[in-house]
Amino acid sequence: MMMRIDIISAVPDLLLSPLQTSIIKRAQDKKKVVIHIHNLRDYAHDKHKQIDDKPFGGGAGMLLKPEPFFECIEKLKKEREYQHVIVTCPKGEKYSQRIANKFSLAENIMVITGHYKGIDDRVREYFSTDEISIGDFILSGGELPALMIVDSIVRLLPGVLGDAESALDDSFMDGEIVEAPFYTRPADYRGMKVPEVLLSGHAKKIKDWKIEQSKRLTEKWKNINSCGVKDG
Amino acid sequence: MMMRIDIISAVPDLLLSPLQTSIIKRAQDKKKVVIHIHNLRDYAHDKHKQIDDKPFGGGAGMLLKPEPFFECIEKLKKEREYQHVIVTCPKGEKYSQRIANKFSLAENIMVITGHYKGIDDRVREYFSTDEISIGDFILSGGELPALMIVDSIVRLLPGVLGDAESALDDSFMDGEIVEAPFYTRPADYRGMKVPEVLLSGHAKKIKDWKIEQSKRLTEKWKNINSCGVKDG
Repeated sequence: MMMRIDIISAVPDLLLSPLQTSIIKRAQDKKKVVIHIHNLRDYAHDKHKQIDDKPFGGGAGMLLKPEPFFECIEKLKKEREYQHVIVTCPKGEKYSQRIANKFSLAENIMVITGHYKGIDDRVREYFSTDEISIGDFILSGGELPALMIVDSIVRLLPGVLGDAESALDDSFMDGEIVEAPFYTRPADYRGMKVPEVLLSGHAKKIKDWKIEQSKRLTEKWKNINSCGVKDG
Repeated sequence: MMMRIDIISAVPDLLLSPLQTSIIKRAQDKKKVVIHIHNLRDYAHDKHKQIDDKPFGGGAGMLLKPEPFFECIEKLKKEREYQHVIVTCPKGEKYSQRIANKFSLAENIMVITGHYKGIDDRVREYFSTDEISIGDFILSGGELPALMIVDSIVRLLPGVLGDAESALDDSFMDGEIVEAPFYTRPADYRGMKVPEVLLSGHAKKIKDWKIEQSKRLTEKWKNINSCGVKDG
């Protein structure tokens, strides 16, 4: 099965290089996913191809108009069934590995992105199945969050990562335990030494050390990020 | 004053299109920020230009070696003083608008990104002033988080956003209050109507409605994202 991802954007050029690099590129080359970018402006029918307008009730900034979204989304929804129509917005659910895992099981995913001030709220209300926030900070648009969602999903698709890159021992895959630190050669770089146990070749000791470090860093992480650990 | 941002990456091509689009592009055109991308491979001196190696103690995946990072970072640090050397990693502090505001006051910022399994931990330990996590999910690298950090900072720089796009009433700027929904024309789109109060022209009523909606959505947001509101 090949997953299909459709991304709708007012600034589609922004999406290009991340989708053509590294693991997302490889996943497309291997036919594990096909990603279609839709330029919102292609669905603007007035002579100026206008896709934004002032907000009702006043306020700074321009809003993306509803009509181009409705036309683009309805066209896509006629062609296939989408398990997830994702809207990226600050008021959504915080994105997490649990949600990435869920999305990775879908066949067709649509990601609707706003830019500048945002999208006329009727688009979200009418179409969204999943409202996702990346975090408590303001971006110029939903494109970078959309790319992160795509990256996090695509790397979970079977056959995308090789055995040697298996995602299974990554941070957050097993509940929300932070991984032990990693080191590679040289074992001594300008006097900065790799922890000796990692050079010992003693599998049990190495495993114990990694678990201990992981616990320690998870505690530290919980303290820094005072929310603590969620249901994961 | 022009801010300078240096980004170090093993897959620099990934960074291109987001830095050449929309508000980040405009900020560079206006000389409000200059962004330099550094290809980690340019600092690999063996004949195969190898920048990664296996982790000590076993485990899946390849790690980025310390030497190319040390050489690149030390070269940059000799040239100017960096107020922030940011490492993007899952065990860091959760990124927030508060941190974006802080970063936006700096003159020189460096962002160190890992890719694949990560970076030899001595790089983080030796150089990082700020360890930043975007969220509890796994990505193929720190490039997309770096781009989000750049976007969130750049839009705060004086003169980047026009008056009409002022960032000041965005979500999260005022504590962590989610904004009221936005609507634009048409007031009635296929029977989906914009809330009447927004069409009333009655400034006081509009303001009250926005505050009420904002409170309602913030409560909803707190319930969805069980951490609640942090110090912001």
